[in-house]
Amino acid sequence: MPSCGWLLVLSLAALTGIAVGAEGTERNCSLSPPYLPSTAVNTTLRLQELRERMRPLNISAYIIPGTDAHLSEYIAPRDNRVAFMTGFTGSAGTAVVTQTKAALWTDSRYWVQAERQMDCNWELEKDGRGGEIGFDPFLFSLQTQENYNINLDSSNRSLKSIPANLVDQVWTERPPIPPDHLTRLPDRVIQRTWQMKVDHIRNQMRDNPYEPTALLLSALDETAWLFNLRGNDIPYNPFFYSYTLLTMDDIWLFVHLDRVTDELKEYLNASCVGSLCVQLKSYDTVRDDLQKYVAQPGVKVWIGTEYTNYALYELITPEEKLMTSSYSPVLTTKAVKDETEQRILRDAHVRDAVAVIQLLMWLEKAVPEGKETELTAAEYVNNCRSKQKDSRGPSFETISASGPNAALAHYSPTEESSRRLTVDEMYLVDSGGQYLDGTTDITRTVHWGTPTDMQREAFTRVLMGNIEISRTIFPSGTRGANMEMLGRRALWQVGLNYGHGTGHGVGNYFGVHEWPVGFQTNNIPFRSGMFTSIEPGYYKDNDFGIRIEDVAVIVPVQTKYGHNYLTFDTVSLVPYDRKLIDTSLLSSEQISLYHQCIIKSLVFTNHYILLQKYYFSWIASKNIVSSTLLLILSSFHFMILYLLYSMTFLTIYVIFVVTS
Amino acid sequence: MPSCGWLLVLSLAALTGIAVGAEGTERNCSLSPPYLPSTAVNTTLRLQELRERMRPLNISAYIIPGTDAHLSEYIAPRDNRVAFMTGFTGSAGTAVVTQTKAALWTDSRYWVQAERQMDCNWELEKDGRGGEIGFDPFLFSLQTQENYNINLDSSNRSLKSIPANLVDQVWTERPPIPPDHLTRLPDRVIQRTWQMKVDHIRNQMRDNPYEPTALLLSALDETAWLFNLRGNDIPYNPFFYSYTLLTMDDIWLFVHLDRVTDELKEYLNASCVGSLCVQLKSYDTVRDDLQKYVAQPGVKVWIGTEYTNYALYELITPEEKLMTSSYSPVLTTKAVKDETEQRILRDAHVRDAVAVIQLLMWLEKAVPEGKETELTAAEYVNNCRSKQKDSRGPSFETISASGPNAALAHYSPTEESSRRLTVDEMYLVDSGGQYLDGTTDITRTVHWGTPTDMQREAFTRVLMGNIEISRTIFPSGTRGANMEMLGRRALWQVGLNYGHGTGHGVGNYFGVHEWPVGFQTNNIPFRSGMFTSIEPGYYKDNDFGIRIEDVAVIVPVQTKYGHNYLTFDTVSLVPYDRKLIDTSLLSSEQISLYHQCIIKSLVFTNHYILLQKYYFSWIASKNIVSSTLLLILSSFHFMILYLLYSMTFLTIYVIFVVTS
Repeated sequence: MPSCGWLLVLSLAALTGIAVGAEGTERNCSLSPPYLPSTAVNTTLRLQELRERMRPLNISAYIIPGTDAHLSEYIAPRDNRVAFMTGFTGSAGTAVVTQTKAALWTDSRYWVQAERQMDCNWELEKDGRGGEIGFDPFLFSLQTQENYNINLDSSNRSLKSIPANLVDQVWTERPPIPPDHLTRLPDRVIQRTWQMKVDHIRNQMRDNPYEPTALLLSALDETAWLFNLRGNDIPYNPFFYSYTLLTMDDIWLFVHLDRVTDELKEYLNASCVGSLCVQLKSYDTVRDDLQKYVAQPGVKVWIGTEYTNYALYELITPEEKLMTSSYSPVLTTKAVKDETEQRILRDAHVRDAVAVIQLLMWLEKAVPEGKETELTAAEYVNNCRSKQKDSRGPSFETISASGPNAALAHYSPTEESSRRLTVDEMYLVDSGGQYLDGTTDITRTVHWGTPTDMQREAFTRVLMGNIEISRTIFPSGTRGANMEMLGRRALWQVGLNYGHGTGHGVGNYFGVHEWPVGFQTNNIPFRSGMFTSIEPGYYKDNDFGIRIEDVAVIVPVQTKYGHNYLTFDTVSLVPYDRKLIDTSLLSSEQISLYHQCIIKSLVFTNHYILLQKYYFSWIASKNIVSSTLLLILSSFHFMILYLLYSMTFLTIYVIFVVTS
Repeated sequence: MPSCGWLLVLSLAALTGIAVGAEGTERNCSLSPPYLPSTAVNTTLRLQELRERMRPLNISAYIIPGTDAHLSEYIAPRDNRVAFMTGFTGSAGTAVVTQTKAALWTDSRYWVQAERQMDCNWELEKDGRGGEIGFDPFLFSLQTQENYNINLDSSNRSLKSIPANLVDQVWTERPPIPPDHLTRLPDRVIQRTWQMKVDHIRNQMRDNPYEPTALLLSALDETAWLFNLRGNDIPYNPFFYSYTLLTMDDIWLFVHLDRVTDELKEYLNASCVGSLCVQLKSYDTVRDDLQKYVAQPGVKVWIGTEYTNYALYELITPEEKLMTSSYSPVLTTKAVKDETEQRILRDAHVRDAVAVIQLLMWLEKAVPEGKETELTAAEYVNNCRSKQKDSRGPSFETISASGPNAALAHYSPTEESSRRLTVDEMYLVDSGGQYLDGTTDITRTVHWGTPTDMQREAFTRVLMGNIEISRTIFPSGTRGANMEMLGRRALWQVGLNYGHGTGHGVGNYFGVHEWPVGFQTNNIPFRSGMFTSIEPGYYKDNDFGIRIEDVAVIVPVQTKYGHNYLTFDTVSLVPYDRKLIDTSLLSSEQISLYHQCIIKSLVFTNHYILLQKYYFSWIASKNIVSSTLLLILSSFHFMILYLLYSMTFLTIYVIFVVTS
């Protein structure tokens, strides 16, 4: 799925100006009485209650951000205060309530959705300006707080920290924290035990010239990674509410204590006190315990500013007790996968490819019969994935979008919006799975009838972007942001572009957006062993959407003269729709890489007869090579395929070239 | 010439580790007594005097940066305190003196030079760490001061501002400020009068939501641009010492008053008081006058943080009186050339091409005779330029480097280092001119004998980088930093790279590095009407150096589907050395662009018979096309050439392809 940095989102806003609005699906507050669609939520009562609680605090406005105390990108329903207050359920939005006004800020991806879901108590702000404005310090990063402050300053306003969340006081039916126990990862998917990881991070603290005495971990994947634990607090993300304070002598793990089994306590050495014993502490005492720690003389706490909330940051005073970096050493260490993680993450992508190919093959047959919809297709692929080994469900809500719906980059079908799939429209499916060994994310765009010239040109140029990034050789330490224009260049050539990021890290049974790896400006430089998605796209308003997303691992490459150069090795193994490729636009290098990918997939599939079978027949159904030839080829086994790959590459290559 | 951002410089250090060191040219402080080359400077006495002045101030160290109060990139000899104190004359370096130690920090480009020029009082620090450390606040930008403070903090040190420079107190023979009068630009090179510019900047102040009441201009080119004035205080740069404080009602120009003639006073309306009258104030009163201004209630001063020195910044208190942006509105406005500026800057490049082609043609004949050196070549091109219309001398010290000397990116020949030019070595010439209508900067690399395969491959890949940037189409507002990898990509492919920036802005009779335009991370996004150099390179230690530098203007381009797209239009008109191009590496698009450039040059030359003649015969001597054919072509006049360009492009194209 596309990652949407706010800068890019702003340009998306400029580029698109989405305006779907079939009559009746969006609210119309200028009528009297206002027209509200059935999807709008009545927020009158809850707004009234919130305003009552604001008055005694003497604040003129209250900010409601769309995040949780760990500044997670994906949040649990119990943290979706924006949805509760406004009715709007999109994944990005900030609401502000004053005594007389209530307003929601979200980016252009969500304007239509907001008009459908909000009642007329709420204004939709497409840009904006801001006495004293209250905020929950748990929901603001240090950086966000500073940005608000700077921007409010020009209008003589300021922020006031209010640790007890006002929305929660109003939200009587807020979902509880899941009671489920935390789980540890099985040994077969682990190379480094938690004790090894703790040692490794302590070494980084020791080597740091600023001499921190403690490291505070605030992002949920930091604690989950450190202890090789997982939970289920956030849909699609195997995280659990937690903080960690790591010193040279102690490990304090803040969790909901009733969720830790005796077995886990033993695993964590929770009954002792010592440098490799984990002291379990209640999740809610983190502020008190941090304050006590900071009160000691000579301590210095290392925090990553991107993922530490203001409520914890503001306790670390005076300034000499604070040490900051953008990302904690846990996040930068986790970004580079060890050998085991690389191997199992590749494996997960092979099984995942089976599921997606099953979907595409089924759609080839089913769509012309006219009974399938965006929703049934999404269900089908989710079901295919659930049958794969070690499946733990989808890694995000499947984006299954046909025709104009695909022009909304983050659309997911609902009963109301779901379109019937036809041979006359393009179809985009962006989906991924959680597996015990890895997280996947892949997008394919197909057409079952006859695409227009413009659709073929746009698809081919998106593919060219994907290939140009994949085949680039670059020095270790180059930033993704300095290469991402390669994903856009073929589109720019004819005045096309896309309004989202070009890729994001993925992890081993973690979030589907695993920062800080990727192509955004604030991402860290690429190193061997990182995994990232590569996902250029193109979106034509009210018409169609294209995205081609693969996951690739960064690997070392031999060059003629230099050392320490890297390139991408694509681990996604689902073919592209041949019908949408205009080969006359591709350079010979691009065609060659495209063919190499296909042949590499053939070799990989020998471990997975199912994929081999589906892959061949799907390619055949797309008329890339004759099905007879493919059936002959598919009767060969591993050795033969390997020989084909290494020795008779040229023969296959010629066949592909002739038929393409 | 290459622009060296410090980040890139650090990587250059890692990449190269330059080590020339012919015995005896560098100092050897481990001998007893130490060995000093004749180029080393005795600094014992001046260090002793400086230390005597430090003691009563109770500072443990004193920092000597290599800049002036305007944070200029190029400085006048009278500001070269680093050279005076250390003997080292490179253009980048910072010295620190304690009671027992004296150390110079410079980057790897200059390590060899520093070892040649410093005596054994000085340590050369290739990286470093730092009581209270004194500094001259006029020589530190706000950003530099902050960076020092942050870094010193970890070792419990801090900075102490000392406005009266200690080195100046020791430096008895410091050169005086030139007594020359300032000059105004003639009307023929001006589209906007200074009054129009003042109005325009005031409008930007008025429109700013932070409501500044004044704008402080600190960089020398800001004041020079605003008033259409020039001076000669800094070699190669037509600047004069100055500050400007611009309010809605007043204009305060701080200069050395004896340098302003009566005529200029009239031009500046210096005898009145009013919103379009320039009040002349003494250069040395800027701190006092700024302090008085800031003491008034309700004022707010806008400064650009990159070019305002700490001595002025520290006066603007309390914080509510300060408004900052990275660059002043003068610098961002100046970055986009108006129609007149674009036209005359293109014109200057045509005349400049004549001079460079004259040099290259002369070298073709003279080098095989064996009498020419790097120095005589530099003198020749400087002389050719001086004969061109409106010439105002070179825009920087000519880099004329053959064989291993060219591997030092910023090398300029001296009597000691100058090599004889031979047909066995490559030759790199990076030079530029100041003209009343524009500043130029161009680099060509040639070989008069038989280049090695590696030299041809490296040259061709550098050319590919130049072409790939030049031909890229991109949305208006794209940053150079996000495209500059195109200049490196063909090199990366075989494990090669270069350790300097890829380009910098150039101006109309201004500095040859006109920031903030260019390909560095802190440069502003590209807009139509900006000029930038494009200059990839490759350097092989102790062997050869390659750089291909052109200047290009950013122009709008029509695309098939989109609006507001830009591309580069190269304005440098000197051909590349055909002998060094391996056309088998070039794509058909790259060959096509290369030929288009050549043909475009033919058309341009019709105004300049001289260029036409030299250009044709030089191409002919390089065997690109037969000289007979060219002589026939060159007898056509403007109309014919224009027709050739527009109608029989194909014919010419075929001729070039056949012969290449």
